[in-house]
Amino acid sequence: MRYDIAIIGTGPAGLSAAITATIRNKKVVLLGSKNLTEKLQKAHEIQNYLGFPAVSGADLAAAFQRHIDEMGIEITEKRINAVYAMGDYFALQSGDEMLEASSVILATGVVQGKPLPGEEELLGRGVSYCATCDAPLYRGKRAAVVGYSPREEAEAAFLAEVCSQVLYFPTYKEDTHLPSGVQVIRERVTGIENQAGERVVKTAENGYTVDGVFILREAVAPGQLVPGLQVEGAHVAVNRKMEASIPGVFACGDIVGAPYQYIKAAGEGNVAALSAVAYLDKMKRANG
Amino acid sequence: MRYDIAIIGTGPAGLSAAITATIRNKKVVLLGSKNLTEKLQKAHEIQNYLGFPAVSGADLAAAFQRHIDEMGIEITEKRINAVYAMGDYFALQSGDEMLEASSVILATGVVQGKPLPGEEELLGRGVSYCATCDAPLYRGKRAAVVGYSPREEAEAAFLAEVCSQVLYFPTYKEDTHLPSGVQVIRERVTGIENQAGERVVKTAENGYTVDGVFILREAVAPGQLVPGLQVEGAHVAVNRKMEASIPGVFACGDIVGAPYQYIKAAGEGNVAALSAVAYLDKMKRANG
Repeated sequence: MRYDIAIIGTGPAGLSAAITATIRNKKVVLLGSKNLTEKLQKAHEIQNYLGFPAVSGADLAAAFQRHIDEMGIEITEKRINAVYAMGDYFALQSGDEMLEASSVILATGVVQGKPLPGEEELLGRGVSYCATCDAPLYRGKRAAVVGYSPREEAEAAFLAEVCSQVLYFPTYKEDTHLPSGVQVIRERVTGIENQAGERVVKTAENGYTVDGVFILREAVAPGQLVPGLQVEGAHVAVNRKMEASIPGVFACGDIVGAPYQYIKAAGEGNVAALSAVAYLDKMKRANG
Repeated sequence: MRYDIAIIGTGPAGLSAAITATIRNKKVVLLGSKNLTEKLQKAHEIQNYLGFPAVSGADLAAAFQRHIDEMGIEITEKRINAVYAMGDYFALQSGDEMLEASSVILATGVVQGKPLPGEEELLGRGVSYCATCDAPLYRGKRAAVVGYSPREEAEAAFLAEVCSQVLYFPTYKEDTHLPSGVQVIRERVTGIENQAGERVVKTAENGYTVDGVFILREAVAPGQLVPGLQVEGAHVAVNRKMEASIPGVFACGDIVGAPYQYIKAAGEGNVAALSAVAYLDKMKRANG
């Protein structure tokens, strides 16, 4: 089963892309949170999404949901950890599962804020962005999770089934809902260090020694998501057709840069979808 | 009275730009048809404007109208014939009136179809795009009008007050509502010719000799609207910030190229407005 277009992200850019790709009769898989994005859901009031004067984020999200519902578009709630260019298709890794698609639209939003000190240096050497992928490495060992939204709690709960100890550092204020095997520590994480082959999660108050650290955010940096992709800082480099540097990869919304605006993201999603359709049609002609 | 931003065009791109520029507290003049665009009003069903599943053009236009109404944004129903870069501001010619603005956003849509044979060669030599501007040249003389929409009938009626004879060639099917001084000819215009110092409007059936020919469309070619502007065929050349080649000029929507989609136009209007705001703020800092 190979999809025509895999769309990663369910904010306005991803939804808009999904709608247009579906209208164009492409086999689409829309990957991301069924809750649409946290950012949209929590927006207090949006004044400049043309057609919706002074609308709450929740109401705008509900209108988006109605739109995809009426078109029969479903969201596949998988987190994509990596996208690999395989020649004439792409392999999308989701935990220990692989999806295949002929083209990919990246609409995962922008990573807010800077990486933690030590995070990038230790990535792949004790620091991971994917509990589902890397949990087996820490079977019977100690893990720490830095969770940037309540959605990450499911990952921490999963780790608790595998690891001997799980420390959970929420960066948000909401109450946590975690099994008793997870110890919640409400201290601000200031960095990750490597000390004598062990990882130390530093907070303003303390240091916590573990084997592995999982840093879980809604979006991962695009260069990490798609190895080899040309980026400009935190953003994917694209042209006005929303084509990224790897043929068959398109990007739209906050991931391609400011302004971070819903209507801009929706417009770009439309363009990315039509560019992906043109790419697929060209590939089809080339293959006879 | 100098505006911060003159927005030309009242389709989705222009409206979206006006909303965002207004939120940013800029002094905006929004120029164009109060009927929003003919193209939108007449659209049968739009499926991919995210948030409005399967909406008619008229209903979507009504939602846009409510949005600008709630924000107190008014449309100034003037046709802009030319935009001149004057150094630190722009002069916008509307008939015999001039408006001034520190920056300009072009959102006039794309000129559909090719120019008539002879049209470009004779422009300024017996062929004009602006009845209000050039009517005095044909006082007591014979004029022909090729009208691409019912909106142009007002121009023909005005010419009838000035010229000795006015022939009106509608390119549309709707009934005309014109004063008795205007002769309506329902023949397809195939070209304009210059014969012995007189203009001849050629149709499949006949040739009509006049002094001046007015060709009136909803949109004029961007290179004619803004002398000196870099164009790519029928489109304004822009970068991803929607900046055109002249500093202070921005463009969005169909005028910057395909895909011709409402949501793409609205997204670009938002980007153009924010780029214009950044330009104005930079000018202000530079001037001190």
